[in-house]
Amino acid sequence: MKSPHIVVIGCGFAGLELIKHLNKSPYKITVLDKNNYFNFQPLMYQVASGGLGADAIAYPLRKIISKMPNVTFRMAEATSVDLNNKVVKTSIGDITYDYLCIATGAKTNFFGNEVLESHCMQLKSIPDALDIRSDILQEFEKALSESDANKIRRILNFVIVGGGPTGVETAGALAEIKNHVIPADYRELDPSLMRVYLIEASPRILSAMSEISSIKAEMYLKKLGVHVLTNTAVTSFDPAHGKLNLSDGRTLETETVIWTAGVMGKTIDGIANHLIARGNRYKVDQYNRLEGYKEIFVIGDVAYMTADKDYPNGHPMVATVAQQQGRNLAKNLLRLFYDKPLCPFRYFNKGSMATIGRHKAVLEIGALKVQGYLAWFGWMFLHLMLLVGFRNRVVVFVNWLWSYFTYQRAIRLIIRPFESHIR
Amino acid sequence: MKSPHIVVIGCGFAGLELIKHLNKSPYKITVLDKNNYFNFQPLMYQVASGGLGADAIAYPLRKIISKMPNVTFRMAEATSVDLNNKVVKTSIGDITYDYLCIATGAKTNFFGNEVLESHCMQLKSIPDALDIRSDILQEFEKALSESDANKIRRILNFVIVGGGPTGVETAGALAEIKNHVIPADYRELDPSLMRVYLIEASPRILSAMSEISSIKAEMYLKKLGVHVLTNTAVTSFDPAHGKLNLSDGRTLETETVIWTAGVMGKTIDGIANHLIARGNRYKVDQYNRLEGYKEIFVIGDVAYMTADKDYPNGHPMVATVAQQQGRNLAKNLLRLFYDKPLCPFRYFNKGSMATIGRHKAVLEIGALKVQGYLAWFGWMFLHLMLLVGFRNRVVVFVNWLWSYFTYQRAIRLIIRPFESHIR
Repeated sequence: MKSPHIVVIGCGFAGLELIKHLNKSPYKITVLDKNNYFNFQPLMYQVASGGLGADAIAYPLRKIISKMPNVTFRMAEATSVDLNNKVVKTSIGDITYDYLCIATGAKTNFFGNEVLESHCMQLKSIPDALDIRSDILQEFEKALSESDANKIRRILNFVIVGGGPTGVETAGALAEIKNHVIPADYRELDPSLMRVYLIEASPRILSAMSEISSIKAEMYLKKLGVHVLTNTAVTSFDPAHGKLNLSDGRTLETETVIWTAGVMGKTIDGIANHLIARGNRYKVDQYNRLEGYKEIFVIGDVAYMTADKDYPNGHPMVATVAQQQGRNLAKNLLRLFYDKPLCPFRYFNKGSMATIGRHKAVLEIGALKVQGYLAWFGWMFLHLMLLVGFRNRVVVFVNWLWSYFTYQRAIRLIIRPFESHIR
Repeated sequence: MKSPHIVVIGCGFAGLELIKHLNKSPYKITVLDKNNYFNFQPLMYQVASGGLGADAIAYPLRKIISKMPNVTFRMAEATSVDLNNKVVKTSIGDITYDYLCIATGAKTNFFGNEVLESHCMQLKSIPDALDIRSDILQEFEKALSESDANKIRRILNFVIVGGGPTGVETAGALAEIKNHVIPADYRELDPSLMRVYLIEASPRILSAMSEISSIKAEMYLKKLGVHVLTNTAVTSFDPAHGKLNLSDGRTLETETVIWTAGVMGKTIDGIANHLIARGNRYKVDQYNRLEGYKEIFVIGDVAYMTADKDYPNGHPMVATVAQQQGRNLAKNLLRLFYDKPLCPFRYFNKGSMATIGRHKAVLEIGALKVQGYLAWFGWMFLHLMLLVGFRNRVVVFVNWLWSYFTYQRAIRLIIRPFESHIR
């Protein structure tokens, strides 16, 4: 009997977990990803802020797949799907499938504002993170060749929009750069001229966590010198003058806006619009099957499931949901093969966390809510465990140890200068 | 009394050594470099071949300079010099000097062939190295989506032109990729389809070393499967068809030509042409003073000195000459300050070495000539010692240990895909 062919589009948290659990299964699997590496997004802000190198958080997919005899990897972009003929069209040609798993993940949501989209920096890919890193370092160099204090202030204004974990962690890292890197490396610059703003439209940052975590995180950020503006939205941006207008009437002058205010599913051409729900996510049933299709599954950020009774408006777009859906789908595909009934997906929320800076983090596991030292060590320990690959764990651990004792950011190289479009 | 102002253009081996030895001197020093890092060129081929990350061999200049109270760093490109007004024109404005030190180094020499220049890869900067790395990995991915064996062969033909240390080391690293990485990561590819060519116009590779070293190096390369073509020059290149024509009548079909066949000084506008000697280097006297100028010094690859009696045709363009000239110039600038007579430069040749692969290297120190295991360990030890910064030493050492035991190349990520112009 011929093995059914599964095509998996995207090898992030969901896709990777799926193929891991179908290793040595009776399926023939082809995984497509436009990158040849798995990208550990939770630590990407540390690449952006110069704490880690890209190779510390990216892991070669071929290395993972080299141990999987039934899995083939192709570095390719899936451009569209032809549902009738069961074909995925890709940058390297057409690939037919028996089962299709869409795990394309999410992209930054600028809510339709094209000015913001083309002028803000974002943090969804490794090149994004490297661009942010280069931009920050370039702004410092630029400030040194400027004599007008107002211009220096504007060059050194860094604005982060969105008070979710990525925004909070990026703001904290930038504040630590202000406090430790500027005095050491840029002694001619007055560190007080650098300002870090965190803009959040809702009443509190980390709004997915409990109130105590939000309050503590805000307190930590303020202690580090971050200007946290809650209940404040970006109303418009004038890139020609670097002016960011806020809903409270304030205008911030800046050359760097990092947009972390929202994500949306990354859809693919060829699937009818009525299957797309809010957040640009595909409607799926409790088995992650695309509505109306028995052979198409959608997992991770791009899946919108309302059948899980604790999450009637869909699951949060986070790594743990993606991993659990990948795992559940692997189980279900095996059950399908052996003609057993499928298991519905139920999300088990393991908790959430965010780190703000040295000894400053918030951590929630069920009813347990911890802040400060313990949360910070917990955050580091859990991230080390979650990283893929022994080498990456060692590299990240050594870098963290080094940064802890030296107060430095190891990677402050401008390898590929970033061309800003502001002003 | 006002401190005289020294402007140093370029912070490679020569410039770095110069400022290190003028730390806390009575001079005020401004160092310019277009990068914010010092780049340890001898290990760059390992970045290109995925053995090391860029941050392992690049070292932040600001970190070095943070300990030097009389030295200022500016990330800037010097565009020209106005010798009459003692001004350096740069990308961030004009800078006046009392003494000027030109340490701009060298660039790849394509001997005027523009086709080669615009279609070959080179290995003189970190972005160059990252491009080569991406290109190699992209060729492997491309070969996987190709079914025509002839096309696969051509995609997997890698040609290195120039049998100096850089060419030899790059060829050896590529051969190890063929032997160890392809079978592990690209199991659908037949490794025998990959070919590595090393083209050298003179009768032997490593011609700056003794004949025994050349013979051994060629033997090692052949053992690894490299096709070494000596007495062979590139006559022309047809990028539209990826055809590289050689002087022996042969034509190699390839998409990747790495050009390491020559270097030339990197000159700067504003200095008269009659001061430029062969190799595009500035004529200097025995104190590294630009001919006819008491306040301008040229050190490193871009300096052409005929006064050193052992080197009547100029010194070799290597790191040790640059470092020794930097050190000697620092001494002379201090002697100048205290009105003492200057010391002429004499190059002390500490020896030379090249590594070909695991347990395979050649090393010459004076009359001592070693090959094989001992040379290989010697090569590694000396490079670790020469690296700048404790962190980089540790990172390189750990990576080497890891590669030694796993036979893998750690960094096989295509972060910024390279756009080839061939075919």
